[in-house]
This record gives sequence, C-alpha cells and structure tokens, in this order.
Amino acid sequence: MELSHIEHLGIAVKSLEEAIPYYENILGLKCYSIEEVADQKVRTAFFKVGQTKIELLEPTCPESTIAGFIEKRGEGIHHLAFAVADGVANALAEVEAKGVRLIDKAPRKGAEGLNIAFLHPKSTGSVLTELCENPNK
Amino acid sequence: MELSHIEHLGIAVKSLEEAIPYYENILGLKCYSIEEVADQKVRTAFFKVGQTKIELLEPTCPESTIAGFIEKRGEGIHHLAFAVADGVANALAEVEAKGVRLIDKAPRKGAEGLNIAFLHPKSTGSVLTELCENPNK
Repeated sequence: MELSHIEHLGIAVKSLEEAIPYYENILGLKCYSIEEVADQKVRTAFFKVGQTKIELLEPTCPESTIAGFIEKRGEGIHHLAFAVADGVANALAEVEAKGVRLIDKAPRKGAEGLNIAFLHPKSTGSVLTELCENPNK
Repeated sequence: MELSHIEHLGIAVKSLEEAIPYYENILGLKCYSIEEVADQKVRTAFFKVGQTKIELLEPTCPESTIAGFIEKRGEGIHHLAFAVADGVANALAEVEAKGVRLIDKAPRKGAEGLNIAFLHPKSTGSVLTELCENPNK
C-alpha cells in the first residue's frame, strides 16, 4: 500500500456553529464547505491546512456513532484518514491478507465524493483509520 | 496566525517495538528516527507521510504524561501539531490576546530541534494542540 498524504483528520464536535469560530478566528483557517452525510448521521465542516483537510463532525441524531463517541470520550480527534495512491480496493485486499480487521469490506462513498473504507481500531493501535481515494483524480 | 501544514500527529503507544510493525508492514511507512525526549519522559519514533510526520510516543516512566493518557483513555491520537509560518512566539502572543489558554507561555525545544508550544485543550475543542517552527528553515 502506498500512502501519499494525510487526506483528513476527523474531529468530533457537539456543534459546528460553536466549533467553527475557533478554527477560523484563532487558527486562521477558512471553512470552505458544510455538508450533511446522511448515512453517517453527521454534518461536516471542512477546512484545509497544507495537503490535509480538517473535517469537523457534528452528530445529527443521538444514534449517530459520533454522538456515541462524544458521550463516551468527549469531543476530540475521532479518526485519521490517509490518501492511498493505488486505490482503496487494492489497499483493503492487501491489508486484509495481512490480517487487518476491516470495518468496510469494500469501498463506499464518503463526504466530498471520495471512495473510502475504515480499518478497525483493534488492528491499528486504537487509531480509527480511514483509507480514501478521489475517483476524479 | 498563518498555519502552513500539519507538522505532525502525536500518537500514544505503550511500546514502540509493538507499534512500529503496523506502521511499517501494514501502512508501508518507514521509521526514520527514534529519539528520547528526556524532559517529556517519552521515546518517540517518526514516520513521514506527505507533509506530515507521525510521532509515536512511548512513556519512559509511569510519571510521563503519556503514561497517564494511556491509563485514562487507552492508546490513540494524543495531539495535533501545526507548523506556523510566522513563528511560535508571535502565534502565542496573538492567540493569548484572543483569550486562548496556553500550556506553554513561551516556545521551548521539542523533538527534532523544533521550537514548540502547546495550547490548552480547554480552548481548542478538546484537541491538545501544538504549534511548531523549524528554527533551521
């Protein structure tokens, strides 16, 4: 598997409206997009810093996994997403063959139209890890 | 404050020797340096992916803040470090004037000879945040 860069960092927040001012007014980043990802039950806000996006994740209902994360651990970094240079499907096949436990057996659509898949934190040193590719590149 | 990129992500691990094989054999990254940072009571292992380093942090004694983090929350992402384009001292003055609580009132030396300072998670949406500059650039 060839990773090109950190595509984004997912950060769980209770409220986008309360969180965005820190990123804009203190860190000097600009929120360039707000998007609802219905099947993940989140609203997301995106910022870019260098090659990497920061993706704030606000739960849209109590059943959202992000709501559960915040209830258990509080707000904070939720997952780490790498851009793979050689395709998510190839990467999944390769890491599964090496014994990594997968959350997603096949790529699915994530925010911003990316093809994504999650690896299970049991296999990644407790870091919830996402692999991404941009199908339009 | 102008952030140029994510300089590194700090990830707390119980053992470098147990954690490094995942990064090397599964993710395909290469550990290019292992360094002890005595005043932070950690041993660190570094990998590079795109612009960003991954810094694994292993506590060297039970009094290490990393040992406390692992005991409380388990292994996982510990902090997020941004490279500031206009100097850490300037950035600290700017964010303190905006009401951000600081852990370090002035820059100090971190791993790899960087000038670093931490912001308090109470002011950063619970994300322990570090600002860095490379004094040799």
